[in-house]
Amino acid sequence: MYRLAERLYPICRSITGNGVRETLAILKEIIPLELTEVPSGTKVLDWEIPDEWNIKDAWIKDMAGDKIINFRDLNLHVLNYSTPVDQIVDLESLKEHLYTLPEYPQWVPYRTSYHNRQWGFCMSHNQMENLKDDNYHIKIDSEIRPGALTYGEFFIQGKTKEEVLISCHICHPSLCNDNLSGIIIATFIAGFLQTLKTRFSYRFLFIPGTIGSIAWLSRNENKLQHIKYGLVLTLLGDTSPFHYKKSRRGNAEIDKIMEYLLRNESNSQIREFSPYGYDERQFCSPGFNLPVGRFSRKPHGEFPEYHTSADNLDFVKPVSLGESFTLLLKVIMLIENNLKYINLNPKGEPQLGRRGLYRQIGGESRQKDYEMALLWILNFSDGDNSLLDIAIRSGIDFPVISDAAQKLQHSSLLSAC
Amino acid sequence: MYRLAERLYPICRSITGNGVRETLAILKEIIPLELTEVPSGTKVLDWEIPDEWNIKDAWIKDMAGDKIINFRDLNLHVLNYSTPVDQIVDLESLKEHLYTLPEYPQWVPYRTSYHNRQWGFCMSHNQMENLKDDNYHIKIDSEIRPGALTYGEFFIQGKTKEEVLISCHICHPSLCNDNLSGIIIATFIAGFLQTLKTRFSYRFLFIPGTIGSIAWLSRNENKLQHIKYGLVLTLLGDTSPFHYKKSRRGNAEIDKIMEYLLRNESNSQIREFSPYGYDERQFCSPGFNLPVGRFSRKPHGEFPEYHTSADNLDFVKPVSLGESFTLLLKVIMLIENNLKYINLNPKGEPQLGRRGLYRQIGGESRQKDYEMALLWILNFSDGDNSLLDIAIRSGIDFPVISDAAQKLQHSSLLSAC
Amino acid sequence: MYRLAERLYPICRSITGNGVRETLAILKEIIPLELTEVPSGTKVLDWEIPDEWNIKDAWIKDMAGDKIINFRDLNLHVLNYSTPVDQIVDLESLKEHLYTLPEYPQWVPYRTSYHNRQWGFCMSHNQMENLKDDNYHIKIDSEIRPGALTYGEFFIQGKTKEEVLISCHICHPSLCNDNLSGIIIATFIAGFLQTLKTRFSYRFLFIPGTIGSIAWLSRNENKLQHIKYGLVLTLLGDTSPFHYKKSRRGNAEIDKIMEYLLRNESNSQIREFSPYGYDERQFCSPGFNLPVGRFSRKPHGEFPEYHTSADNLDFVKPVSLGESFTLLLKVIMLIENNLKYINLNPKGEPQLGRRGLYRQIGGESRQKDYEMALLWILNFSDGDNSLLDIAIRSGIDFPVISDAAQKLQHSSLLSAC
Repeated sequence: MYRLAERLYPICRSITGNGVRETLAILKEIIPLELTEVPSGTKVLDWEIPDEWNIKDAWIKDMAGDKIINFRDLNLHVLNYSTPVDQIVDLESLKEHLYTLPEYPQWVPYRTSYHNRQWGFCMSHNQMENLKDDNYHIKIDSEIRPGALTYGEFFIQGKTKEEVLISCHICHPSLCNDNLSGIIIATFIAGFLQTLKTRFSYRFLFIPGTIGSIAWLSRNENKLQHIKYGLVLTLLGDTSPFHYKKSRRGNAEIDKIMEYLLRNESNSQIREFSPYGYDERQFCSPGFNLPVGRFSRKPHGEFPEYHTSADNLDFVKPVSLGESFTLLLKVIMLIENNLKYINLNPKGEPQLGRRGLYRQIGGESRQKDYEMALLWILNFSDGDNSLLDIAIRSGIDFPVISDAAQKLQHSSLLSAC
Repeated sequence: MYRLAERLYPICRSITGNGVRETLAILKEIIPLELTEVPSGTKVLDWEIPDEWNIKDAWIKDMAGDKIINFRDLNLHVLNYSTPVDQIVDLESLKEHLYTLPEYPQWVPYRTSYHNRQWGFCMSHNQMENLKDDNYHIKIDSEIRPGALTYGEFFIQGKTKEEVLISCHICHPSLCNDNLSGIIIATFIAGFLQTLKTRFSYRFLFIPGTIGSIAWLSRNENKLQHIKYGLVLTLLGDTSPFHYKKSRRGNAEIDKIMEYLLRNESNSQIREFSPYGYDERQFCSPGFNLPVGRFSRKPHGEFPEYHTSADNLDFVKPVSLGESFTLLLKVIMLIENNLKYINLNPKGEPQLGRRGLYRQIGGESRQKDYEMALLWILNFSDGDNSLLDIAIRSGIDFPVISDAAQKLQHSSLLSAC
Repeated sequence: MYRLAERLYPICRSITGNGVRETLAILKEIIPLELTEVPSGTKVLDWEIPDEWNIKDAWIKDMAGDKIINFRDLNLHVLNYSTPVDQIVDLESLKEHLYTLPEYPQWVPYRTSYHNRQWGFCMSHNQMENLKDDNYHIKIDSEIRPGALTYGEFFIQGKTKEEVLISCHICHPSLCNDNLSGIIIATFIAGFLQTLKTRFSYRFLFIPGTIGSIAWLSRNENKLQHIKYGLVLTLLGDTSPFHYKKSRRGNAEIDKIMEYLLRNESNSQIREFSPYGYDERQFCSPGFNLPVGRFSRKPHGEFPEYHTSADNLDFVKPVSLGESFTLLLKVIMLIENNLKYINLNPKGEPQLGRRGLYRQIGGESRQKDYEMALLWILNFSDGDNSLLDIAIRSGIDFPVISDAAQKLQHSSLLSAC
């Protein structure tokens, strides 16, 4: 996973353009992504696909001809979606187009101007403060013209039409925790799942933030009814504790599952839905209101490296990616096994002993979790409670519950509903 | 407001009689009250309008002819609704008709006997203890005979038929926090509102406690369906913190509004409904169950001055009246602006930037309350949530939410429902 | 009550057999129990009535002919439902059939093998450790053959068909807190109730655990609709605090009543339903889901004496039985009086003074509980709230509320619904 991060890190992604295509091409080496190109000018919900932006190079040279800013060193140096420019400007004019972070004077900020045509550079505040009062030669070799917005999609057909949606954004340039960590976890989970037979179908989206999810939603309204669980993945590579932001519904099954799994993860946090953040904003807009939450570590805007040059390959740790991957696997295991059953013998307890499901000698005061699991499942499998509900209520670990349910089903005492 | 208190304080009010009429005549100088006279003997719900009580004078003279108790000094000295009497009695007989407060021996209690014909005097416990064992000449120059119960009403027609009910009791004699403070706040709020165009209609009631609200309810059942919010005002002039008693429903909009506004008021208290207190007892009887709460400071019976001569002009402070007035204005502002909207573009977020509602440069980690307000309103304006619900949920101040909603409406993104 | 315990203690009960019959015969001296015999082999829900077990004697003799274990000293010494055996065995073979409690080496455990044919002895761990490596003559003079399962039932017809179910298990041999305490409390309560006219009908069940309640349920499905309240009684004789386990519904009236009554009992505990324990497992199986909770002191498995020879006549205290009896009486008083009423004058308060229900002199700041009770009942008797709901909400003691309701009913202000 970390090696994939290293390959993807230098690419200059944006909401459109060849950086996205290059990124998706690399992911295709791992999973058979299907790519979609939505032409500029296409109406998508309330939005319109913008012209495509591509950039070859950019720099600021001092009058000695030395490059003091070089896009090829760090693509964050260019305001994302900058118009082309090639001119000599004095310091004062240049400063009108510079973005810095006074609170973190050594870091370069990430800034964008997707919908307002302008050019700009981002640099460290220290560097800006030390600029001599001189002229500078600036050049941005970019172009903005009709093209397309590109996104990748991978669908795994399960036994049922019901879908689990996993979405991540692919529109940030050299930012590692923000965008790359989500892309990588999604890719590896998809790679793992394609080798299995699953109950649910799984749909993975690799899309530019906001405009990408809006484009996808606009073209796939007929599929939304099948989405039973969904997660937006992002910010999963740093060392902070897990964090889950609930879906707008607040009580969707995915919310319950994440609460259940995170309560054993130290310092993890659950938050109520809010309409700001990543693409859960679109999936959870009131007209769709999908059961989609967001799984991350420290949320956007709550760590200083966010949207700066410090969100780099050092900020993301292999062990953190591994933990995030493992937690997501647990989520999927739980989704796959979180069935609702009906007790086929609901009046009184069935005689478990005769079916070999219960100890023979009575009177002992200590009970086994496994036998208790049988009783809990039988009592609460009335069509209302899922196995997860029963695990929560009984305090017995989900795997014990899930295993006991299978035993009861084999004994014809339970039927999946 | 305090000057009005000074004028109203000396008047001897009761549940009927000229004291009430005199009080309402003074209020008519400020607002165009409509007066109603309900004749004695009229059946009102389970009750009957009693005979009217009026009193000219009353005193106790010692055998030297000195007035030791004088109604004209303090009208609390007479048991309210006392029958006329003029006789010489010995101390023992007199004491059977005396009411005092042993716990507060310097104060004169307020006592009534509306429905049981008798006469009595109220005096300080100290004075009673010092009465010489002698005869006394007592005189109460009152009359109880068929007349009417009088109440005042002021209706302000708003844009809609839906009403806000503001009610206060006008039946207490020289008690200042209890009854005068409510009367004064209601009068000044009414005076302020009559100069404005409001969305809601406002109905102000100036009524004798219990029998007055019962009479009004009995005569206005057809109007009750329009009452969407209601407050009983009383005990608003002392220096204790604000207190709100919820409507019987417990989750009416007025309850939510008062909870929201009082949580920023230091030491304020919210209590559940109970069937004792002021006219909320009648408005919230189960057959009406109106959304009417009670706004006061320290509740009745919880401060020693309650129903004694110590609830006088010193006990009420101009600054307290001012604070109460201001809080009530906030309530009304909130009621007027607490609309529910429908997001007209509920699928995905609308593109706010193109409408000039959103910043142009992306990537900054700090959000403005105003932009967040736009997102919260759009996401939760699904017909279920009011702006207040959204303010509570988002933690953004109501005025910011309300302002943002108007901007969205002007951009045709929102429609009031 | 304690004397009844002394008489019942030595009897060797099981889920079938003469020990149960002997027990029920003693109870018939107090209450007119109706006995039911369900023949072996009868299908009852998912189960089948087993062959009947009876035992005359059992012992282990050492080679000197001395009885080192004697069933007549303590019937727990025999594995309940042991097959007959009469043979000489060496120590090693014997040990395969011995049950002991290593954690409490002086106590004899209680063990059963109802559904798996085998023989066994229970002894103290100390005794087993000291057994010489020798041969032993073992004898169990028991028989298992077709017969019947016996249970007792006592029904008291009340004014209505609605029933209160009181159930206890009668299948444990010399165990005193576990089974005898419940039997005794149930018997004495039944004896007390048969002398009264009650609103509800009362049904008392004296049944073998599990198979007994399953048999009864299987034969009485048509009666279950009438059960409005139910309690399983057990473990009511030791000195630990009261404990109530809620019905599966969790919000049944019996749950509310027990919570209300136990909150004044020091250290009492309320627990959520779980599908393990006594016959509430069957009554609360999802196909029946009856409003039946369990009233006990320290629950099964949570005190060391549970299912051992230490649960004897010393472990149970007369005063504890008395307290349990008294609490159950309070439950019944509450059930009998916990009516729902409708306020017949729901619009405004009725005039209580004219009906002699309210004080004549107004103005006092302190209220009497009794007058407040009148107001609470009138306000909340809307068909939704029971008197218990009103007691909980008002904080006024239930007896005051109940008494006030009767006064209001006599004044034709209230009608039971």
